[in-house]
Amino acid sequence: MLYARSSLAATMLKFFTAPNTCSLATHIALEEAGAPYEIAFVNTAANAQRSPEYLAVNPKGRVPALVTPQGILTETPALLAFIAQSFPAARLAPLDDPFAFAQVQSFNSYLCSTVHVAHAHKHRGFRWADDEAAQASMRSKVPQTMTECFALIERTMFVGPWVMGGTYTICDPYLFMAAGWLEGDGVDPAQFPKVLAHRARMMARPAVARAVAQAAPR
Amino acid sequence: MLYARSSLAATMLKFFTAPNTCSLATHIALEEAGAPYEIAFVNTAANAQRSPEYLAVNPKGRVPALVTPQGILTETPALLAFIAQSFPAARLAPLDDPFAFAQVQSFNSYLCSTVHVAHAHKHRGFRWADDEAAQASMRSKVPQTMTECFALIERTMFVGPWVMGGTYTICDPYLFMAAGWLEGDGVDPAQFPKVLAHRARMMARPAVARAVAQAAPR
Repeated sequence: MLYARSSLAATMLKFFTAPNTCSLATHIALEEAGAPYEIAFVNTAANAQRSPEYLAVNPKGRVPALVTPQGILTETPALLAFIAQSFPAARLAPLDDPFAFAQVQSFNSYLCSTVHVAHAHKHRGFRWADDEAAQASMRSKVPQTMTECFALIERTMFVGPWVMGGTYTICDPYLFMAAGWLEGDGVDPAQFPKVLAHRARMMARPAVARAVAQAAPR
Repeated sequence: MLYARSSLAATMLKFFTAPNTCSLATHIALEEAGAPYEIAFVNTAANAQRSPEYLAVNPKGRVPALVTPQGILTETPALLAFIAQSFPAARLAPLDDPFAFAQVQSFNSYLCSTVHVAHAHKHRGFRWADDEAAQASMRSKVPQTMTECFALIERTMFVGPWVMGGTYTICDPYLFMAAGWLEGDGVDPAQFPKVLAHRARMMARPAVARAVAQAAPR
């Protein structure tokens, strides 16, 4: 709670998450912000994200969700910007520069609408096609689409040492989370030395280590 | 330019767009903001979005893109928030309330990462599977996925008369654009009376009519 200076500083947030999901990005941001929050694990192995109880929290049946004093928020890019704006002293986004903020948002939007979607065609093909042959066809293309996504990130988006350059932002936990998919998606991360070095740089941050440890399956 | 009061007020923006694309949302926001901009049409029928000239603008090979004095921005949710922040007098987003701003961003994030993706499986299945049978399978599921998306919007997200309630925001042009896909995606919009009324409400706005007219194929 060191950095919390907004009206949220003394208010407990409730963070709905599940291991091995994109929630890790938001989890890291909460830790980086020094936000006061408690964790509620959603048992996705038991499909609890589709339970009536959880659908009352998030009608979309997905994690993450963040319960705030003003209401419930969902969608990773929105949560990341919310955390940056609510805990400005943590300096997680360039809040006073609309262009720089838009660059942050553009990167995060690419991760959610293109990279996460490419990845999701491995295990979540049923969202977009009913028959198993089509789902297998989607699955087989994931190494290619994920390689293309990360080649674009490595070549045209990542500045270094952090995503946006010299300053750590809410793009960094989101990239770190997505880069964690590479090996499982059949992509050799050695093709992307900047992304790989970023992953190691992230693991050295105490906030990242805390979030990773807390988010691990138990 | 009536409302422009930021440093962008006197600076011409260059807006890369194409007819019948999600660029319409950004186009409407530019009109609502009274932004000074010029239009550059990308001939997607001739695949110009993959030309070396356009890839130098946007390496992702997609529209929209916005050239600003500080650099080039892409991704609809980022562009919409950028326009709202750069032209604050137009009051296109709740800029002083992180929670309300996050609600706006959450809605727009859902449109880009779920609704647009569902729609894209009709004509852009080649992004996620190579064989025609798989693409046909994806295509056949689009009426179902788009119906589910808009049922969720109608039931749990749309407040009315505008997306966020009494105040028009950058969510409205984005929903308007996406709702324009319904008939073509094999979904009867009469199932969604709030969305349908919103579409008519939007068409009555002069800024919307101007953007629609300018964006029409010529």
